[in-house]
Amino acid sequence: MSRKASVPANSVALTRRVPRKRRFAVIMAGGVGSRFWPWSRRKSPKQMLALTASRPMIVETALRVRGMLPDENIIVVTSRDLGPAVSKALPWLPARSLLCEPLGRNTAPCIGWAANEILSREPGGVMAVLAADHLIEPKEQFRRALREAFSLAEASEFLITFGIRPRGPETGYGYIEAGKKLYPESPLRLVKKFHEKPSLVKAKRYVKSSKYYWNSGMFVWKAAVIADELRRYLPEMARGLAGLEQSRRRGRIAAAALDGVYPGLESVSIDYGVLERSDRVAVIPATFEWSDIGSWDAVAALWEGDKLDNLSRDPLLVLDAGRNVVASRGKPVALLGVEDLVVVDSGDALLVCKRDRCQDVKKIVELLEKLEGSGSALRKLL
Amino acid sequence: MSRKASVPANSVALTRRVPRKRRFAVIMAGGVGSRFWPWSRRKSPKQMLALTASRPMIVETALRVRGMLPDENIIVVTSRDLGPAVSKALPWLPARSLLCEPLGRNTAPCIGWAANEILSREPGGVMAVLAADHLIEPKEQFRRALREAFSLAEASEFLITFGIRPRGPETGYGYIEAGKKLYPESPLRLVKKFHEKPSLVKAKRYVKSSKYYWNSGMFVWKAAVIADELRRYLPEMARGLAGLEQSRRRGRIAAAALDGVYPGLESVSIDYGVLERSDRVAVIPATFEWSDIGSWDAVAALWEGDKLDNLSRDPLLVLDAGRNVVASRGKPVALLGVEDLVVVDSGDALLVCKRDRCQDVKKIVELLEKLEGSGSALRKLL
Repeated sequence: MSRKASVPANSVALTRRVPRKRRFAVIMAGGVGSRFWPWSRRKSPKQMLALTASRPMIVETALRVRGMLPDENIIVVTSRDLGPAVSKALPWLPARSLLCEPLGRNTAPCIGWAANEILSREPGGVMAVLAADHLIEPKEQFRRALREAFSLAEASEFLITFGIRPRGPETGYGYIEAGKKLYPESPLRLVKKFHEKPSLVKAKRYVKSSKYYWNSGMFVWKAAVIADELRRYLPEMARGLAGLEQSRRRGRIAAAALDGVYPGLESVSIDYGVLERSDRVAVIPATFEWSDIGSWDAVAALWEGDKLDNLSRDPLLVLDAGRNVVASRGKPVALLGVEDLVVVDSGDALLVCKRDRCQDVKKIVELLEKLEGSGSALRKLL
Repeated sequence: MSRKASVPANSVALTRRVPRKRRFAVIMAGGVGSRFWPWSRRKSPKQMLALTASRPMIVETALRVRGMLPDENIIVVTSRDLGPAVSKALPWLPARSLLCEPLGRNTAPCIGWAANEILSREPGGVMAVLAADHLIEPKEQFRRALREAFSLAEASEFLITFGIRPRGPETGYGYIEAGKKLYPESPLRLVKKFHEKPSLVKAKRYVKSSKYYWNSGMFVWKAAVIADELRRYLPEMARGLAGLEQSRRRGRIAAAALDGVYPGLESVSIDYGVLERSDRVAVIPATFEWSDIGSWDAVAALWEGDKLDNLSRDPLLVLDAGRNVVASRGKPVALLGVEDLVVVDSGDALLVCKRDRCQDVKKIVELLEKLEGSGSALRKLL
């Protein structure tokens, strides 16, 4: 379908009507991304790494929306540990727009807090929820899609999710089953059902049908609507978050209040906690390229390969070696007679892994966590 | 056979009679050992690395004989480039005992020059020729064997080689076929024939027979005898080396004289040039453990393995990985789902290699040599 056809006539009108300052972008940056060890560490998780470009992924994410809305309307939710690093990476971000969770409680509390923050500033605010560590290209196409989604959310009460047209029978993603079309001029569809990470057989069936999309984990909605839905489906959590609002002074919530409330919040994703239950969820097919870059293998797919499909941005010396992935931060790597390996050098540690075991890199981090209590010198690699 | 039986009665007497100062050890330290890249470099070749112990192999080699003879009687032949590093590694070595070749010409010129150096000091000198980069253990056993060999060489005109009882059908070594016994009280035998690196079929036959030994490349003989044999079998080379002696001033040969003569010398091994032709070559079975440590695989055989036979002296994190060799200079290495790899980190470069391709590591160095002229930044890894 042509780009033009996907823009509903009424949304174009709304884009002009709704002030820019009512639009917010919430960047979720609390994850660890331990599948990117040894590059990813507690103090420099995946979103702080320059995996896809020369700048950290969180910087790429913020710059992707910067200029579309006032700087202070970009809100980053991260962990308290990462706060200083995020602040350094995004020096233009006002302190009030950096929300630091005392501990991770999955995406529902994170989004609920951000929604309340927005409502405290703009009762009519509309928010885009973005992950800090996804690859999205090209930037202009994404911005057009985001503007459309803002318009649709402003003109409706829908919880809008970006659906990705499946590139293959991926079993690592959740799938969204689309239902009826909501507007004649727009590709927005009601969501019929969310499907958890499927079996390969199911995934193949989904890919064949045109009704299924990958769940990108990116959403656009009115802050008031998601706050309503949180009250309906996660009332205890909503009460906890409302308690936080009581302690708001000069726009900020004190760390002590967060310490009191956060540990008691249910750890649940917005998908499982709200979207899978709500009847006002809609999906819009993404018109941009997207990858959640879930493993070294996925990152390497973005790099140029040599004649034998060795993927790297670093200097390689290759003899009878093919289909290897190397990330060595500029250090020369010689490959002799090896195939299908992932080799990652962080300077202070090295990973050598079979490519089909990339998802298990996080288990190496779990090994390190087990060593943590033992006083092993290896704990510094966490 | 018992250790006692292998000591010829007359040699014990000779040990007492011949002055210690007539005994010399010549350590050949001119090689590159490119199979140990990326640890081995032109400026720090294999013999300068601490592969088998905490000290460089050349230091281990020198300390293995030090104390058996005067320090100045330990003579090291190396390349001019390596001279300063050798001198630093062996600070007690007198300058006169460090012979620096302007370029490598294999072992025959190296041994010929050392023989002449010894004859200039001690016309009755006896010399042991040792490689700087072999593993020999235990030290005391080796010293006893060396004393015996010195005694045998002093009491005879034989060119004595140390033969290693084969541990398996190795195709990477030359083999010595032993002939008749020379003394009733000693295991010394005349050499019947040298056999080049054999096929696996031949090697298996050799191992079954008790008459075959690996050629260790370690020899003991009178300096005058090897000089005679060089004059007989490599007369041009002997003349070239005699020319050098003409330029000897205050015991030393000037660099300019070496520059004039060395490039014209034939590049040939003492084995091929002399030992395979001479009829006075004898072999004595080594009573010590020996390995030429020809590859990373061979070094790793000395290291302790974990339950899955991963061999390393460095901290490993292992998940479903076995039979790997890791040398990372203390850096932690995680192995996930990989088998039969050699992983070597030198700080500025990394090698990942299948274990059965260890012998081809030198081909990586050849790749680097090809890049040398191109101005590539990788040339610093040579």
